Amino acid sequence: MSITAAKGFEAGGGAIGIKPSGNPDVAILVTSSREAVPAAGVFTTNLATAAPVLVSKSHLADGKAAGVVLSSGNANAATGAAGRADAQRMCQLAGDALGVEASDFLVCSTGLIGYSMPMAVIEKGIPLVAGNLNGATAAADALLTTDTVRKEAVAAVGDSGAVVGGMAKGAAMLAPAMATMLAVLTTDANATHAVLQRALTDAVAKTFNQLCVDACTSTNDTVLILASGAADGPEITATEGSDYYALLDAVTVVCGSLARQMANDAEGATKVATIRVKGARTDREASLAARSVASSQLVQCSLNGEDPYWGRILSELGASGAFIDQESVTISYGEHVLCAEGIAAPHDAEAVATLMKAREIVITCDLALGYGEAEMICTDLSYAYIDENRGTS
Amino acid sequence: MSITAAKGFEAGGGAIGIKPSGNPDVAILVTSSREAVPAAGVFTTNLATAAPVLVSKSHLADGKAAGVVLSSGNANAATGAAGRADAQRMCQLAGDALGVEASDFLVCSTGLIGYSMPMAVIEKGIPLVAGNLNGATAAADALLTTDTVRKEAVAAVGDSGAVVGGMAKGAAMLAPAMATMLAVLTTDANATHAVLQRALTDAVAKTFNQLCVDACTSTNDTVLILASGAADGPEITATEGSDYYALLDAVTVVCGSLARQMANDAEGATKVATIRVKGARTDREASLAARSVASSQLVQCSLNGEDPYWGRILSELGASGAFIDQESVTISYGEHVLCAEGIAAPHDAEAVATLMKAREIVITCDLALGYGEAEMICTDLSYAYIDENRGTS
Repeated sequence: MSITAAKGFEAGGGAIGIKPSGNPDVAILVTSSREAVPAAGVFTTNLATAAPVLVSKSHLADGKAAGVVLSSGNANAATGAAGRADAQRMCQLAGDALGVEASDFLVCSTGLIGYSMPMAVIEKGIPLVAGNLNGATAAADALLTTDTVRKEAVAAVGDSGAVVGGMAKGAAMLAPAMATMLAVLTTDANATHAVLQRALTDAVAKTFNQLCVDACTSTNDTVLILASGAADGPEITATEGSDYYALLDAVTVVCGSLARQMANDAEGATKVATIRVKGARTDREASLAARSVASSQLVQCSLNGEDPYWGRILSELGASGAFIDQESVTISYGEHVLCAEGIAAPHDAEAVATLMKAREIVITCDLALGYGEAEMICTDLSYAYIDENRGTS
Repeated sequence: MSITAAKGFEAGGGAIGIKPSGNPDVAILVTSSREAVPAAGVFTTNLATAAPVLVSKSHLADGKAAGVVLSSGNANAATGAAGRADAQRMCQLAGDALGVEASDFLVCSTGLIGYSMPMAVIEKGIPLVAGNLNGATAAADALLTTDTVRKEAVAAVGDSGAVVGGMAKGAAMLAPAMATMLAVLTTDANATHAVLQRALTDAVAKTFNQLCVDACTSTNDTVLILASGAADGPEITATEGSDYYALLDAVTVVCGSLARQMANDAEGATKVATIRVKGARTDREASLAARSVASSQLVQCSLNGEDPYWGRILSELGASGAFIDQESVTISYGEHVLCAEGIAAPHDAEAVATLMKAREIVITCDLALGYGEAEMICTDLSYAYIDENRGTS
């Protein structure tokens, strides 16, 4: 039930004909009260920003929203002024059907870049989905593109009685032809816009932003949260104190679960690797180093071949922009140290070969310079990734 | 004849047993006079710097060198103090055999990271190769790893009578498992160390540094130039004037030819694409944008599939760190404009489909903001790239 686990929300989804396949392609979330409630968003930093992102940012300027309409099959990106009018029109259609101001609706789209939205089917379809709010499961299904499984998560906000729920569609590693990571969270905690924005920003930094498959940042990436306050819990107005941290924890748990589900659903991928960097001079340098290793095509090929070639890891650390002293670096695969003080370390090759056959692998790089730490999750580079992304048809 | 096209140099190569295959694996270049001459180098910026790079930098500190010994099959990277001693020993062995100080010899290695050099075969082999300087062709052959063809180039230094010659081994796209781009140039122009360094640095920036396949910077990348002065041309002591520019042009032509040969020899690749960015606010932003497009796994997959998906190009421009105004961007494949003012442009789809089948494709992105320009060369991402890089054996 994910996005309706929190009290005060309704949702639904259906197939309106955006996707030629006839699969579900529009999802709607709306407050039960039809009133705008505190909301926050984190959006792509890509300057080729898609129309729905521009419209949602503008509608979130007052820190409130009453609903979100999401479509899959067409990204409404690189579509100019006409595309912005189409995104705005989608808010209008959903709002009109549900008795909400268009400016209180947010909009997300995912799919191919550079094609006009099929407005004829959207004009007909959005009112139909809005008129039949058939539940969060149908909404989560309508969000998917080439994802193989629905992605949902729920977490309690401490012992306040409130919960955070969320649904998402796959990140770049799943199907970059269809691009884009979208996630929508709801909570019935009673929090202000400023509190939600800070909690969401911090949670995204620790979760979705640590996923890396092809290092491509989509034109449409969006993560949203709406807070109904319907749980009658404590009012959370400051980004400190135990109530705030309980909310932050719940948002982080939901985002983390959704991010992990995305990695695990990577169709092309046979491996999910966690790259941990510690001992960097700063967290920022640790992050640079972890991202460099995680996004390396060479490292990803080695994972695909189940080859514990730590030399490539060391090379990526050295080229990452983070400072390293190569002769202090330790690299471990699972518990096995393969590189100590920058050179090959004696190890149980048979045990490492067994470890490399697992789907999930943890690689730890200790730079031994300071207290900076970071973690990234990546997948391997496989034939299937290429197949998925060779063409748009 | 490449590196012996310039007067005053001798070279040779042979198989000494570093490579299990028995293919040639050691090359030696030395001045005919056995005297140190002005020399310069450009080295990897990777902080996991390989031992031969550290030793060559130290031996080049006086701006002079009498020779270069190169080996393939083992990178002597991530080998610690023992690796540095081995690299130093290679200079000593070559120097002793040829009557040159070890500190006047430079050393380059390429191959796997993290393995000790097989010094027993090197102790025997280097004197054998040094004692039989069988020519530049044999040297160029000994440099190769999984390259399929020898890479050599020669250019005249204006009408001075001097020439620049060079040999190289493949860049990352060819066989990143074997890593590393190495190039050695010679000239009989009469130039100082400072002049050579400036010309080489500028030429590398415009040529080798514009090649991008997997965005991985090797631990061993090295480009060297030695100038014998044997052509009795004008003395070039300043980085200005027509004599200097003639030298710079010749060095750039040789580096450019070697870089293009590397791209064309990309085993895994079926396409070589030139990504041109113009109209950026600055050259630096143009370079960021071009590099981002060229290194994109998604763009490379589209090239592999012969799919003119300009939306991904626009997305990479927007995520590159360069400023763009998406609604001013024009993207052309060859002469065909596929995106104008940031949205799809009408075009001859059949002609574009034909264009995409060619091995060489030029993609031009005009940001229409200023005068910044840059160009990168990339290849597609193919099954063969993965095959080449799944394992080290």
